[in-house]
Amino acid sequence: MNYREESLKKHAQWRGKIEVVPRVEVDSREKLSLAYTPGVAEPCLAIQKDIEKSFELTRRWNTVPVITDGTAVLGLGDIGPEAGMPVMEGKCALFKAFGDVDAIPLCIRSKDPDEIVHTIELIAGSFGGINLEDIAAPRCFEIERRLKEDLDIPVFHDDQHGTAVVMAAALLNALQLVNKDMGGISVVINGAGAAGTAIAKYLLRFGVKDIILCDRFGILDETDERLDPAKREMAALTNRGRRRGMLADAMKGADVLIGVSGPNCVTKDMVRSMAPDAIVFACANPVPEISREDALEAGAAIVGTGSSEKPNQINNVLVFPGLFRGALDVRATDINFEMMMAASRAIAGCVGEKLSREHILPDAYDRAAHRAVASAVAEAARRSGVAKL
Amino acid sequence: MNYREESLKKHAQWRGKIEVVPRVEVDSREKLSLAYTPGVAEPCLAIQKDIEKSFELTRRWNTVPVITDGTAVLGLGDIGPEAGMPVMEGKCALFKAFGDVDAIPLCIRSKDPDEIVHTIELIAGSFGGINLEDIAAPRCFEIERRLKEDLDIPVFHDDQHGTAVVMAAALLNALQLVNKDMGGISVVINGAGAAGTAIAKYLLRFGVKDIILCDRFGILDETDERLDPAKREMAALTNRGRRRGMLADAMKGADVLIGVSGPNCVTKDMVRSMAPDAIVFACANPVPEISREDALEAGAAIVGTGSSEKPNQINNVLVFPGLFRGALDVRATDINFEMMMAASRAIAGCVGEKLSREHILPDAYDRAAHRAVASAVAEAARRSGVAKL
Repeated sequence: MNYREESLKKHAQWRGKIEVVPRVEVDSREKLSLAYTPGVAEPCLAIQKDIEKSFELTRRWNTVPVITDGTAVLGLGDIGPEAGMPVMEGKCALFKAFGDVDAIPLCIRSKDPDEIVHTIELIAGSFGGINLEDIAAPRCFEIERRLKEDLDIPVFHDDQHGTAVVMAAALLNALQLVNKDMGGISVVINGAGAAGTAIAKYLLRFGVKDIILCDRFGILDETDERLDPAKREMAALTNRGRRRGMLADAMKGADVLIGVSGPNCVTKDMVRSMAPDAIVFACANPVPEISREDALEAGAAIVGTGSSEKPNQINNVLVFPGLFRGALDVRATDINFEMMMAASRAIAGCVGEKLSREHILPDAYDRAAHRAVASAVAEAARRSGVAKL
Repeated sequence: MNYREESLKKHAQWRGKIEVVPRVEVDSREKLSLAYTPGVAEPCLAIQKDIEKSFELTRRWNTVPVITDGTAVLGLGDIGPEAGMPVMEGKCALFKAFGDVDAIPLCIRSKDPDEIVHTIELIAGSFGGINLEDIAAPRCFEIERRLKEDLDIPVFHDDQHGTAVVMAAALLNALQLVNKDMGGISVVINGAGAAGTAIAKYLLRFGVKDIILCDRFGILDETDERLDPAKREMAALTNRGRRRGMLADAMKGADVLIGVSGPNCVTKDMVRSMAPDAIVFACANPVPEISREDALEAGAAIVGTGSSEKPNQINNVLVFPGLFRGALDVRATDINFEMMMAASRAIAGCVGEKLSREHILPDAYDRAAHRAVASAVAEAARRSGVAKL
C-alpha cells in the first residue's frame, strides 16, 4: 500500500482524528442544572479556595495538550504550525487509545522561545501535563528547561525523551541477545538534534561510557568553534577519546549505531567496519540511514528501524501514552530520569520469551505494554518523590 | 434539590464533564501507518502548501476553544482562571450535545488584554472559531474587538452576544403577546457590564429607539465624568431623553426591564411604576433582580428569569451551540449582526403554537431549536457574504 497517498484520502474522509464528547447528560432541566448553572457555581468556588481541587473537579487531571510550533515535524522539517496538526491529532488519538489520556492538539504560531514558553505557561492551568512535540533543536531544549522549572505539572518533549526511552528499551534487549552490556559498549549516534542529544544524555545516565555524537559535519568535538552552545555541551559530555572525522570514522569498531538523522547516510562498508555483533538502529523516517536489508547483509547482528512494515520498529508510540498515564495517575509534578528509566525497563521486559533478533520490542499497539509502562512509571514517581498522590 | 451541593458531589464523581476520543482506529500496524507515521506526512505537506486545507484534513473546522481569564464567572466575579474551568467544561459538553461542536476548555492566567489577545492569536491556527467566556467588562470589549479584527475565524464573546441574542428572542415573542413592537417600546437595562452593553447595542440594531442603561450608580448619562470610555460610549448611544437618576427613576413608564445585574435590586413598587403590560426579564444568577412571583404580583404581564426551575428561563444555552454549528458549517469568517439576528428569530420562531406568557422560549435542551438556529445562521452567513463554503 502507498501509505502516504492512502492516508491523504483517509484524512479527507475523517475530517479529524479526534473529537470531544460529553461525559455527562444534559438533556433535561435537572441535569443541566447540575452540570451547568446554577449548580456549577459550587465546584467553581471550591477551586477558588484551593486550586489543587481543579485536579479533582474538572478534567484537568487527565488532560494534556500536544503542542508544536511546526518547526520539526516528522522528517519534514519546518512546515508551519497548522501543517503539523495532522501529526498532533494522530498523537492525541494514540494518547487516548493506549493511555486513556485526554489529549488536545495545539499549534503555536511563533518560533520565539520566549513567546512559546509564555503562551504555554499562561494556559497551563487548564492541563495536568504538557507534551511538547516536533519543536526544532536547539530551541526545544530551552523551551523544555524553562517550562520544567516554572510549572508544577509534568513537561515532556517527546521527540527528545520518548525517543530516548524507547531506544534504550530496544538497546537493553538487543544487548542481551548479543551478550554485551551498557557499561562496555561504544555507541555512535548520528544526528545531534533533539532526539540525538536526548539519547546521548539518557544513555550516559544508563551507564554507557563511550558515546560519539555526529551531525552532518561529522563527529562533535568540543574544540570545534562552529558548534552552537547545545552541541558544544554535548561534545563535552561525549567523545572522550577526542576523535575527529566523519560518521564513517566514528563507526569504525563501534558496537552500536543509532541513526536519528536522514536518509541513506550510512553505507554497507560503514556497517562492515563496526565491531562483531553490531547493533544498527536506523530510525530516520520515512527513509532510514541504511535499509534493514543492507545492514543485515553488511553483517549487523540486530537491526531496528522506524518503519512499521519491518521487524523491530523503534517507535515512541510505545512510550508516551503509558508514561503520561502513570504520571497523571499519581499527580506527578515532573517526569524525571527515574520514571523514564522505569519506562524503558518496562517496555524491554514486555517482550519476554518472544525475544529474538527479529523481535526486540513489543508492538506499538500492544495494550499490555502500555499498561506495564504506566504502572512502572507511577511506581517510579512515588519512589523518586515527585508523586502528589 | 440543592443544586449547588449536589453539583459539587457530582463533579467529584465525574472528574471531568468532557473527554477526547479517537475517531480512527489505531489497533493494527496498518491503521497506525495511515493515522500516524508514515502516512500522516502527506496531509501535513498538503496543509503546508495551502493552510486552508487544515479545515479539511484535521478537526480544526469543528473545534472551538471556550476561553476564560476567570474574571467574571457566572455571578461569582473574579474567581481566577482555574476556578472558571467547571463552567468552561460544562459549556463544552453543551457545545457537543446541542451543536456537535468539539469544544475544549482553556483558561488563561492573565488579566492583561494584550497578553490575552496575543495568546489567543498564537494558538488560533488550531481552531475553527473562538468562544470567549466570562471575561470582565470593559476588558472583554477590547479583547473581542482586536481578535475580530486580526483573525479570519469567527470570534464570539458569549456573555455579550449570546445573552443579547436570546434576550431579543424572548423579547420578540413577549412583545407579540402584548401587542407592542420593537420600534415603539422603551427599554430599561440594569447592568452595564458585558451583557448589558451588548444587549443595548443589539436592541438598537433591532430597531428599539428608547433605551436607558443603568449601572449600580444609576442611569448612564454622557455628561457623567465617572464613566469609563466603554460606558460613556453607551451613554451616548442610549438615554436620548437625557434622563438622570437611579434605576427606579428610569423604570417609571418603561415597557421593558432587562436585568443583567445583581440580586434583589428591583422592588415591587418599581415594577408597579412601569407601563401597562410590562415585560420583566430579571436574569441575574442565581438570585434575580426581583423574583418571578413578586414581579407578577406587581403587575408585570410577562416575566422571564435565568432560573431553570421557573417558566421562561432566558438562557444563552439556546444560542451558542447552534450559532457556532451554523458558522462552522459554512466556514464563516465572522459572526456578524445578520447571523445573530437570524439566530434570535429562529429561536423565537421555534415556540410556535405553544407561545404563551409562561412559554416564550423553547427549552434549552430542545434539539429542534438548536438545529433551527444552525441553519438560520448558516443561511445568514451566506447572505451577508462571510461564508467561505
